[in-house]
Amino acid sequence: VNGTVAEKGRPYPLPPRARQIHVLPEDLKTPDNHVERDPRLIRLTGIHPFNVEAPLSDLYDEGFITSKNLHYVRNHGPVPRVEDSEVLNWEFTMEGMVENPRSMTVRDLIRDYDQVTYPVTLVCAGNRRKEQNMVRKSKGFSWGAAGLSTALWTGVSLADLLVRAGPKRGAKYVLMEGADKLPNGSYETSIRLSWAMDPERGVLAAYKMNGEVLHPDHGKPLRIVIPGQIGGRSIKWLKRIVVSSEPSVNWYHHNDNRVLPTMITPEASVNVPEMWKDERYAIYDLNANSAICYPAHDEKVPLSDGPDNTYKFRGYAYAGGGRRVTRMEVTLDQGKTWRLANITYPEDRYRLASDNDTLFGGRVDVSGRLACFCWCFWDLDVPLAQLQDAKDVMIRAMDDSMNVQPRDMYWSVLGMMNNPWYRIVIHREANTLRFEHPTQPALIPGGWMERVKKEGGNLTNGFWGEKMSNEDEPAVEKEPAK
Amino acid sequence: VNGTVAEKGRPYPLPPRARQIHVLPEDLKTPDNHVERDPRLIRLTGIHPFNVEAPLSDLYDEGFITSKNLHYVRNHGPVPRVEDSEVLNWEFTMEGMVENPRSMTVRDLIRDYDQVTYPVTLVCAGNRRKEQNMVRKSKGFSWGAAGLSTALWTGVSLADLLVRAGPKRGAKYVLMEGADKLPNGSYETSIRLSWAMDPERGVLAAYKMNGEVLHPDHGKPLRIVIPGQIGGRSIKWLKRIVVSSEPSVNWYHHNDNRVLPTMITPEASVNVPEMWKDERYAIYDLNANSAICYPAHDEKVPLSDGPDNTYKFRGYAYAGGGRRVTRMEVTLDQGKTWRLANITYPEDRYRLASDNDTLFGGRVDVSGRLACFCWCFWDLDVPLAQLQDAKDVMIRAMDDSMNVQPRDMYWSVLGMMNNPWYRIVIHREANTLRFEHPTQPALIPGGWMERVKKEGGNLTNGFWGEKMSNEDEPAVEKEPAK
Repeated sequence: VNGTVAEKGRPYPLPPRARQIHVLPEDLKTPDNHVERDPRLIRLTGIHPFNVEAPLSDLYDEGFITSKNLHYVRNHGPVPRVEDSEVLNWEFTMEGMVENPRSMTVRDLIRDYDQVTYPVTLVCAGNRRKEQNMVRKSKGFSWGAAGLSTALWTGVSLADLLVRAGPKRGAKYVLMEGADKLPNGSYETSIRLSWAMDPERGVLAAYKMNGEVLHPDHGKPLRIVIPGQIGGRSIKWLKRIVVSSEPSVNWYHHNDNRVLPTMITPEASVNVPEMWKDERYAIYDLNANSAICYPAHDEKVPLSDGPDNTYKFRGYAYAGGGRRVTRMEVTLDQGKTWRLANITYPEDRYRLASDNDTLFGGRVDVSGRLACFCWCFWDLDVPLAQLQDAKDVMIRAMDDSMNVQPRDMYWSVLGMMNNPWYRIVIHREANTLRFEHPTQPALIPGGWMERVKKEGGNLTNGFWGEKMSNEDEPAVEKEPAK
Repeated sequence: VNGTVAEKGRPYPLPPRARQIHVLPEDLKTPDNHVERDPRLIRLTGIHPFNVEAPLSDLYDEGFITSKNLHYVRNHGPVPRVEDSEVLNWEFTMEGMVENPRSMTVRDLIRDYDQVTYPVTLVCAGNRRKEQNMVRKSKGFSWGAAGLSTALWTGVSLADLLVRAGPKRGAKYVLMEGADKLPNGSYETSIRLSWAMDPERGVLAAYKMNGEVLHPDHGKPLRIVIPGQIGGRSIKWLKRIVVSSEPSVNWYHHNDNRVLPTMITPEASVNVPEMWKDERYAIYDLNANSAICYPAHDEKVPLSDGPDNTYKFRGYAYAGGGRRVTRMEVTLDQGKTWRLANITYPEDRYRLASDNDTLFGGRVDVSGRLACFCWCFWDLDVPLAQLQDAKDVMIRAMDDSMNVQPRDMYWSVLGMMNNPWYRIVIHREANTLRFEHPTQPALIPGGWMERVKKEGGNLTNGFWGEKMSNEDEPAVEKEPAK
C-alpha cells in the first residue's frame, strides 16, 4: 500500500507536493496527539474534535487537487489510531441481506478486486453555514466557503463488493459504520443500494488518498468515498457494510445531515422527533453551489485610468449527484442582468487517460463516464470602469438538471446546504475598490453580513439587509378592493 | 396487443374510464384526419400541428392517471398513420456501436423480452411557458400549467434491449428517431447510454398506454418513455435506436429543448450557432416544479363568519431524474414565512403490488425502486381569516437533492423549464375572495401577469410587477463611500 510517485507527462493534474507536517502543540493534550497536521488549517470547533477548513485563498491556490495538508476535516470525536503495520490487516465486514456475508481485510480488497483511481471532491453539508448563522443561529458551527476539497482516491468500487456479496431481494439500502467511538455510539449512516450499485455514481471503498496511505483524519486505513454526495455519508475508518431493507437508525444518521423545513426553529426542533427520522429531510446529493475566491475578503484593487483595465473574478462551483455545472452567471446589478463566466473542468482531463493507464496502483477509470465528481473553476474579466459603479457582485451556478442557485437563503435548523447567490460588496475608497465577502469562517470577524447586522439591517428583507428608503412602510402598494 | 380490463381490488390506481372520442370537424382538413380527439383539449398552436393541454381543473380532477383523452400532446407535424393490423409488424432497428445490430418488430419485443407496466408522468419542457412569454416573448408557444400527464405504460426496458444488443467500448449515447416527417427532416434526439442502462431510471420502449394500443398522438404503435426527463426526449413512432459515442446532431436535437443562458435574446440567438449545439444547454432531467390547481383561476370563495372556516388549497408537484418532491411550502406573505403542505404520492401505492402482479400484460415492476417517476399532489387548509388579509399565495417544491423552486423566473429564449414560485393573487371583493392565476394558456386572456403589464407594471422588478411606492427612485439607499 505504499504510495508511488506519479511520473510527469500525464494529461491530467497530479497532487500538489505536500509540505512536511508534524503533530502540533495544541493537539498534544488531546486524544489526537498522534495526528500530524498543517498549522494553516482554521479550527472551527476549538481545539478538539478536529473540524477545519483551509483559508479560502490557500485552498484555491493549491489548484484542482488539494493536498492532505489543506483538505477540510469533519471529525465527531477522537481519531482512531492505526499503525502503518496494521493497515493491510484492517478487518471489515459485509453483512445483512446478502447471499455471501463475510469478513475481509484491506489486503483482500487489494488482492481480489479491480483497483481504480480517480478524483472526487468532498463537500461538507455545512459549507457556507456561517452565512446561515448570521441570519439566525443554527445548531451547527460556522463553516466558511472552504468546506470542500478534492483528492485522488484509490480503492475498489463498492458496486463490485456488493455484486460479489449478492444483495437479496428486498434490499434497498447500504448501511456503513466507522470505528470512531462517540458520545452517542458509533457513527453509521446509509445510502440507497441502487446508488451504491450504479457505476455512474462511482462509490468507492478507498485506502489511498493522493497516492498515500490515508491520513488519520481522512479515515486511515479505509473509508467510503461517495462522489456527488455530502461528505457526511462517506464513512471513515470503515468497519461494517450492512445491506438492509431500511435506512440506518443510528443516532447520527437521524440527528445530523438534514435540512428540516425552514419554519422549524431550534426551539421547535426538539418537539418533532418524527421529522428527524423522516428520510425526506435527509441530505444525500449536494446541491449546486459556488463561491468567489478572488477578490479575497478585504482585497483592495487600485483604480487606474485606462479603459481596458479589468479585474479577473475567479472562484469555484460544484453540483451534486454527478451533475455538471453548465453555466456560471455574474451580476453587477443585483440580478437585473447577468453575464456568462468561463468554466474550466480539470476533471475532464482524466477522461483523456489512455485505456490501460494506472495511477497509484489503480486504473484511471473515467473514460466511459459522463458524470462529474469534482468541483470546477470559473473566471470572468470585468472592466474596472463597470466595477467602480457597482454596489456588489453576485454569482450563481446552474447544473445540467437546470437547478440554479436561489437568490434567497433557505434557512434550516442545522444550517446545511446553504447555497444562495454568493455576494461580495464593493466599497469605493478614494482611488481603490475594496471587496467584502459575506463572512469569515469560525469566530473570525468581518464580512458584510456582520456589518449589516451591526448597522441594524434586516438580512432577510430580500435585499441582503440593505436599508430600503421605505423600509418602515409597506414595501408594496396595497391594491384597492374592486 | 389488445387492452385488458384491469380488475378492481388492486392497491394502486387504475386509469379513469375514457369517454368515447371521434375525429373532430376541425381536423378533417388536416393530415390528422384519422385521429380521434377530445374536444376539451386546448389547442396551443392553432388547428395543426396538434399541441394541446387540458383545462387545468379537468386534468387535476381526473386524478393520478390521466386518460388518453386529456393527456397533453406535443406534435411537430402530421401524425403517422398506422392501422391496428400493422402494429405487431411495426419494424424498428437497433444499430450503431453494438455487437448485435438488428431489426425487430413489436411482435419480437413482446415475445422475446420481459414486459413491464408502471406509471410515468410526462412533462413538456414548455410547461408554464406562458408566464415566460408574458415577461418577454420567447421562441415558443404558450403552455399553461397543464403541460403534463400521467399514464400507465406497458413495454420493455430499454436497458434489456441494450444489454442484448451489446454496446461497444466508447459508446456513450443512445440516439432515437421517430417516423414523423417534418420540415427539417426526421425527429431524432439522444440521451446518455448510462441513463438508458440504469434500471433505476426506468426507460421504456412502450406499446401500450393505460392498457390500450398507443393512441396515434402518443406514438402508435411504439414509443420511448423516459421517466424524470422532459417529454421531448421520449421519441414517438419509434423507428431507430442508434448507440453512439456522440450525441445526436439532428436539427431538432440542436434547436429544441434547450435552456440557453438568460442574456441570449431572441435577436442574439441567431448569431450563436455553437451555443445551440452545446450539450451543456440541452435539457434532460426535469427540474422541481409545482402549481396550484384549486382555487382555479377566477374561482370565488364567499367569506363567512366562523373562525374555523378554511379553504383547502390543492395542486400538483414534480421533480426530475427520479427525484422525489420532499416538501411543499406555502407563503401568504411573499416569502417572509412559510407553512408546510401535505403531500400524497399515489405512485407509492404501486410499490405495494405483490411480487407476481401483472397489469395489461406487464409486471408491475416498482417494488425494488426508490426513484419517483410521477407527479404528486399537495394540499393545505388555510383559515379564511388569514386569507382575507393576504395579498397573494405562493408555493414552492423542494426535491430530495434539496433543489428548491426559485423565487424569480429564469427567462430563456425558448422559454423552457419555467419554475419560479407559482403565485395566485387574492382579490377581496365585498364579502368574497377571488383568486387570480398568473396566466391562462394559449391566447386565452386573464391572469395577474397580463393585468400587471396593462397597468404599466414591470414584471421583473423582483416584486411580481407590483408597484413599489418608490419605484422611480433607487430601491436601495446608496451606501456612502468611506
